[in-house]
Amino acid sequence: MVEQNFPLQYSRDCVIRATFTDYQQVRQLSEKICQPLAIEDYVIQTMPDVSPPKWHLAHTTWFFETFLLIPYLKGYEVFHPQFNYLFNSYYETVGDRHPRPQRGLLSRPTVTTVYQYRTYVDRSIQEAIASHLDNPDFAYLLLLGLHHEQQHQELLFTDIKHILATNPTRPVYCKATTFTTKVDSRDSREKYLDYPGGIYSIGHTGEGFAFDNESPAHQTFLQDYYLASQLVTNEEYLEFIDAGGYNNPEYWLAEGWATLRTENWRSPLYWEKNADEWQIMTLMGMTDLTDDEPVCHVSFFEADAYARFRGKRLPTEAEWEVAASFVEIRGNFLESERLHPVVGKAITRPDRLYGDVWEWTQSSYHPYPGFQAAKGAVGEYNGKFMCNQMILRGGSCVTSRSHIRPTYRNFFPPATRWQFTGIRLAE
Amino acid sequence: MVEQNFPLQYSRDCVIRATFTDYQQVRQLSEKICQPLAIEDYVIQTMPDVSPPKWHLAHTTWFFETFLLIPYLKGYEVFHPQFNYLFNSYYETVGDRHPRPQRGLLSRPTVTTVYQYRTYVDRSIQEAIASHLDNPDFAYLLLLGLHHEQQHQELLFTDIKHILATNPTRPVYCKATTFTTKVDSRDSREKYLDYPGGIYSIGHTGEGFAFDNESPAHQTFLQDYYLASQLVTNEEYLEFIDAGGYNNPEYWLAEGWATLRTENWRSPLYWEKNADEWQIMTLMGMTDLTDDEPVCHVSFFEADAYARFRGKRLPTEAEWEVAASFVEIRGNFLESERLHPVVGKAITRPDRLYGDVWEWTQSSYHPYPGFQAAKGAVGEYNGKFMCNQMILRGGSCVTSRSHIRPTYRNFFPPATRWQFTGIRLAE
Amino acid sequence: MVEQNFPLQYSRDCVIRATFTDYQQVRQLSEKICQPLAIEDYVIQTMPDVSPPKWHLAHTTWFFETFLLIPYLKGYEVFHPQFNYLFNSYYETVGDRHPRPQRGLLSRPTVTTVYQYRTYVDRSIQEAIASHLDNPDFAYLLLLGLHHEQQHQELLFTDIKHILATNPTRPVYCKATTFTTKVDSRDSREKYLDYPGGIYSIGHTGEGFAFDNESPAHQTFLQDYYLASQLVTNEEYLEFIDAGGYNNPEYWLAEGWATLRTENWRSPLYWEKNADEWQIMTLMGMTDLTDDEPVCHVSFFEADAYARFRGKRLPTEAEWEVAASFVEIRGNFLESERLHPVVGKAITRPDRLYGDVWEWTQSSYHPYPGFQAAKGAVGEYNGKFMCNQMILRGGSCVTSRSHIRPTYRNFFPPATRWQFTGIRLAE
Amino acid sequence: MVEQNFPLQYSRDCVIRATFTDYQQVRQLSEKICQPLAIEDYVIQTMPDVSPPKWHLAHTTWFFETFLLIPYLKGYEVFHPQFNYLFNSYYETVGDRHPRPQRGLLSRPTVTTVYQYRTYVDRSIQEAIASHLDNPDFAYLLLLGLHHEQQHQELLFTDIKHILATNPTRPVYCKATTFTTKVDSRDSREKYLDYPGGIYSIGHTGEGFAFDNESPAHQTFLQDYYLASQLVTNEEYLEFIDAGGYNNPEYWLAEGWATLRTENWRSPLYWEKNADEWQIMTLMGMTDLTDDEPVCHVSFFEADAYARFRGKRLPTEAEWEVAASFVEIRGNFLESERLHPVVGKAITRPDRLYGDVWEWTQSSYHPYPGFQAAKGAVGEYNGKFMCNQMILRGGSCVTSRSHIRPTYRNFFPPATRWQFTGIRLAE
Repeated sequence: MVEQNFPLQYSRDCVIRATFTDYQQVRQLSEKICQPLAIEDYVIQTMPDVSPPKWHLAHTTWFFETFLLIPYLKGYEVFHPQFNYLFNSYYETVGDRHPRPQRGLLSRPTVTTVYQYRTYVDRSIQEAIASHLDNPDFAYLLLLGLHHEQQHQELLFTDIKHILATNPTRPVYCKATTFTTKVDSRDSREKYLDYPGGIYSIGHTGEGFAFDNESPAHQTFLQDYYLASQLVTNEEYLEFIDAGGYNNPEYWLAEGWATLRTENWRSPLYWEKNADEWQIMTLMGMTDLTDDEPVCHVSFFEADAYARFRGKRLPTEAEWEVAASFVEIRGNFLESERLHPVVGKAITRPDRLYGDVWEWTQSSYHPYPGFQAAKGAVGEYNGKFMCNQMILRGGSCVTSRSHIRPTYRNFFPPATRWQFTGIRLAE
Repeated sequence: MVEQNFPLQYSRDCVIRATFTDYQQVRQLSEKICQPLAIEDYVIQTMPDVSPPKWHLAHTTWFFETFLLIPYLKGYEVFHPQFNYLFNSYYETVGDRHPRPQRGLLSRPTVTTVYQYRTYVDRSIQEAIASHLDNPDFAYLLLLGLHHEQQHQELLFTDIKHILATNPTRPVYCKATTFTTKVDSRDSREKYLDYPGGIYSIGHTGEGFAFDNESPAHQTFLQDYYLASQLVTNEEYLEFIDAGGYNNPEYWLAEGWATLRTENWRSPLYWEKNADEWQIMTLMGMTDLTDDEPVCHVSFFEADAYARFRGKRLPTEAEWEVAASFVEIRGNFLESERLHPVVGKAITRPDRLYGDVWEWTQSSYHPYPGFQAAKGAVGEYNGKFMCNQMILRGGSCVTSRSHIRPTYRNFFPPATRWQFTGIRLAE
Repeated sequence: MVEQNFPLQYSRDCVIRATFTDYQQVRQLSEKICQPLAIEDYVIQTMPDVSPPKWHLAHTTWFFETFLLIPYLKGYEVFHPQFNYLFNSYYETVGDRHPRPQRGLLSRPTVTTVYQYRTYVDRSIQEAIASHLDNPDFAYLLLLGLHHEQQHQELLFTDIKHILATNPTRPVYCKATTFTTKVDSRDSREKYLDYPGGIYSIGHTGEGFAFDNESPAHQTFLQDYYLASQLVTNEEYLEFIDAGGYNNPEYWLAEGWATLRTENWRSPLYWEKNADEWQIMTLMGMTDLTDDEPVCHVSFFEADAYARFRGKRLPTEAEWEVAASFVEIRGNFLESERLHPVVGKAITRPDRLYGDVWEWTQSSYHPYPGFQAAKGAVGEYNGKFMCNQMILRGGSCVTSRSHIRPTYRNFFPPATRWQFTGIRLAE
Repeated sequence: MVEQNFPLQYSRDCVIRATFTDYQQVRQLSEKICQPLAIEDYVIQTMPDVSPPKWHLAHTTWFFETFLLIPYLKGYEVFHPQFNYLFNSYYETVGDRHPRPQRGLLSRPTVTTVYQYRTYVDRSIQEAIASHLDNPDFAYLLLLGLHHEQQHQELLFTDIKHILATNPTRPVYCKATTFTTKVDSRDSREKYLDYPGGIYSIGHTGEGFAFDNESPAHQTFLQDYYLASQLVTNEEYLEFIDAGGYNNPEYWLAEGWATLRTENWRSPLYWEKNADEWQIMTLMGMTDLTDDEPVCHVSFFEADAYARFRGKRLPTEAEWEVAASFVEIRGNFLESERLHPVVGKAITRPDRLYGDVWEWTQSSYHPYPGFQAAKGAVGEYNGKFMCNQMILRGGSCVTSRSHIRPTYRNFFPPATRWQFTGIRLAE
């Protein structure tokens, strides 16, 4: 969901108004996330999926400049004439853009200049909010910009993790604090909870904010199904590895098996075996593998192969959403500052269908029936990513609590591993 | 659907028995398809998706040898010890195999030897049928082998077409015969036929043959929908081209647009503009573009972009199957020997939902709810292609009439163009 | 030296005249070489360096058509209008051409048509010779065409060998006849023969035919040097392998070591270790490695690494040519029909500096001082390959005796292995 | 000559001793070169040939640590245990090393840490010099390390230029100072100066420092030749461009033409045409093209094509060295701080065969007769780059005056353009 976009047509339905205080809180969080970085960490791009942190800081700012300040703030002068070229992510009608895989070839603008850009835009936004918040289009776009920045906050974490993990010296992003605390280990048995079939409505309704891909709400038919009450743990996943899971094509989709061979996958991303002991890279540095943590940094292909190994399957996104409609949104989110999935077998439903890791579903990313592409630049490419991507649900330990909803549809290509992604089984 | 496979568990449900006469008919058709070829045409591989015709002839034979003769015919000796290596397509448990992209690097076995291989296996199959047809597993595998060979017959046509079209001299596969006959041009207005929403059952039932991916039958919920009564024509598609469809990213999925740019797509495959006149390559050689033929050799990306250009969408596979349940299976199939979509606006529903071109749907290839992977080599990889592929429905002018069913699910990656693929709009 | 070319300016110096009988002999040899092939063997291209045998047969014919018939034979009609596109190798001014790596994607023209093309051109050449042989330009071009075809005869052997060796069934090109005969094994000690330094003239002089890159003759200064009296044998080369030569970067040029790792070289091309026994692929099929055969199918990188392993070096081309000026041109050439290097330690100088294998030198392919590029299509690209190629000297077991000279400069990129290439040490 | 290396055996011949003051001067120059950089500029790698500036600073330091401190300074403790892995360039026997194309993926060690590393090593070197300078091996290695660092100083300039030029904002490295000063424009006619043929000695002799590839001195035979008295200018090169030089394969080596097409070369590197005016990127930012500056940033392929366009050729390295033996070493070197070739037709011989731009020769990089590879790590790979590289002579505007000699052999692959490389014609 790297570069989600947002249609204009939803602005009238959304009655929420963000204040400048809301704006400041979101914007400051991005900067807080980058606070532990050295200047050098802001600049590099360790694979095409990763963007340099300074690019995220500038791109989210460009979003406000392009979609709010230029159209709405009279007399606004852009900060730098080439930033539209450098920090446009994919909006074709907004003009040419710098090629994504070359974001790491740019030493300039410097980090200092990027922060100046943020300050410049923030001041202008304050001015614009003062006079335009009653305009529902402006209000919606403001909200959209904030949700957009929240998405990039999650990417900041995943990209910083990849940047640090690529370095042979394995630098530490932050010291462990609450990280090692064991939480809620009340119940160690995996359970399957059953849900009755029938016709359910899924998709977004109501007056709150949602992305366009969550609409329109519509009816869908589900058969009876079961969902595991907890996420697959490292210990369980190790049984798959030790049983030769990565050597046996029988468990794998053909494309997954081909990817495994090309990329030489032997375990989830960030796992290393040193002298017969598994260690993993975390934002707190290298650490021993903990058995009862949720397994993390697996691709859809690995999640799917693991499910087949267990004689189970992954849930559909509709199954997940229906189950989620019964529970509160609680869990290990960014606010906990753990920045890692929680230890403990008690990550059980109904209390815990959210947080820790995004859960791969078996659903491809498709438009909902009746989905309509919006007009204009913001909505220009609605649905343009609706191909060859799989839906993930539930949010992770680096997702903001305020960003997630039962209807929220995250999506990534099936080989993706650098996000905080895990597995919940169904049958 | 190049290399579909077949689960054992369906054998008990299928009460049909193929006779040796059935076997002979299918087998002879493969050889008849190759009859116009020069020896040289049998050998080459013009892109990784294409297999040399002699490979198809040998691989389909290997299937019977491996899954029927070796297990069932006592004392059977394989024709050549290395053919299992050379002609295994992807069955991992059957042993190593020759890499697919290198099939065109093999001058040996010669075409003559491949035909000897066919004769050798055919004789043994006759013997095996005589004594094992009462065995339901054997009977099912026999039927499976025949449906498998029918699939490769369609691939023979598409691969031969690609081989000939790659040659700058544009050789002719066969002379046009009934090809230019205009057919059924009773009605020139495109119509949209409406279907009421509700809960429908889709998927295979009954005692006839079906592939495992058509099962289990299950209920699904559809909203009200419309399907176009006819396929998109060349003339209509030309309006898309002339309106700059290939230059405007707004119509395209992001991955489609990237593919268009990488592959430099400017029109469907096999279209060439010579001195302002469009011509197309057919199995009958180069010919002028005919306005009211169904457009053919478009990818899913092009079909999807065209639909967006028209403000419409592609049907889902369930919508298509429900509509198909109301009509007879009639249409322009291989038996007509036209080997090209039929000219004429009257390719209208309800008479014509089948034949001419495979129709892209907006549905990804997913397992049906309750789909179970089979055990053993034949079913080893059930569902292993259920990722990053789109469903096509309805059969084409090079599909055997006896091969198609309302529940039949063909699938190809979204960039595929060398199959006979076209567009029906929905909304 | 795949696609050597020939300047017009040498025509006046060359007083030799080829007769139609000479022409017929050379032309028939090409067809005799292909006589053991199946049609299928003529068509494929197993790597970009290899051309399909039918391409060689057609391209050499195109050369006569383009440079002799079209300019000189009044009223000549080309055999097929697209053959200039299909069978031009690299002459930019003669027009566009079919991309080299796609020569194996052409099933048409068929082999039969290619032979018809040869017959058609041969008849016209007979007619042209009758009336134009007194024209020195025509006479030179005729000679050039024959030497050109002789080069392609060597390529036919090396390409056929690669085509057959790529096939897992390892087909045999021809039965062994004189192949296993041991020859001349009079002397088993390697000797180094010394040559005094001084100023020598190298390069072509006299009235015989030579390619332009052998001119002008010029003086060069050599220091005292030694050349090994015999070629490096398989046994000697095995000591390099067994001593870890392929695992030790110390022996290798940086680019050679990188190539070794990318290509996973563990031995010369066509060597296979089966159950601890080395076997090699020959034109007579798989055979056990013979200790005292000259090692063959090594790249320049391997030859250079071997020399360093022995504390020796490769000769320069000037050193080789000066030594060759003292000996007769005798050796194991194509005429012996062995098609393989000769067994026997007695491949000693001064009797044997020619034949068996092309000998890598340490000299890059450079223009001789005073080299002048010719005008016109035939000579359009004189010297265009004079970059990143190494000189080889002496001819091989698949070179025609009549094709070789002391001044003959063969050249290939340093990673080339599919030619019959071997090693003579110097110091 | 990115990663030249140095044999031990020359240490006894070289009687020069570097003092700690010499050491400090060289070391401080590296840091002075980087002084205008932002931290961000130190980190990125804009193509595989380019290294991040901080890598150069650390690698040159690693050289002193590895070859002087560890072997000679008792009790020395390495600064960081992983720096040997990170900053080894290619010394195989010194251990594994970080892959070259991934040098830009390392944000750590930070620039600050790299400077600390330099300080740490510098202090230890001071200590080591105090006690070991009488040891001739130590003294030679010290000198070697300084010449090694001088080579990397030239690379710092070329890499910084590439890093800045890759950025769409075209940042300025330093302000122009003496840069625009016109110099010595006494004589505008190009002249060819003739040199008599004969036997000459080339290669290093005497007691000064030289790299191993300059030895042994040896005799070579030259024919009469002419060298242009001045370098090819932008104006002259523009005539080649305007005459269609980049569209006409007749001027180009086959591999050069293929590279031109793949890389889409239309002019030298760093040239841009804006509104019909040519501009070039310099270390002082974008500037208009100056007619009578030496053309710079051309590959060997372009130099060779240009020479053919003029009916001339490039000199051999022996021709250049003989001519250079008659002149003083004067010219536009790093010390002038122009950092750009000098304007002015008067860049004439005999005063000016050095500086401004490295001059491509037509000589491949080969070992001199009698060249012996040294033993041990420093000399481990002598000559390992002697393949597929062309010799350049004379130094450039970013070469230190103290680094250059008449016998100095620089070398790069023929497609190289990011060095300061130009053209002198010969005939």
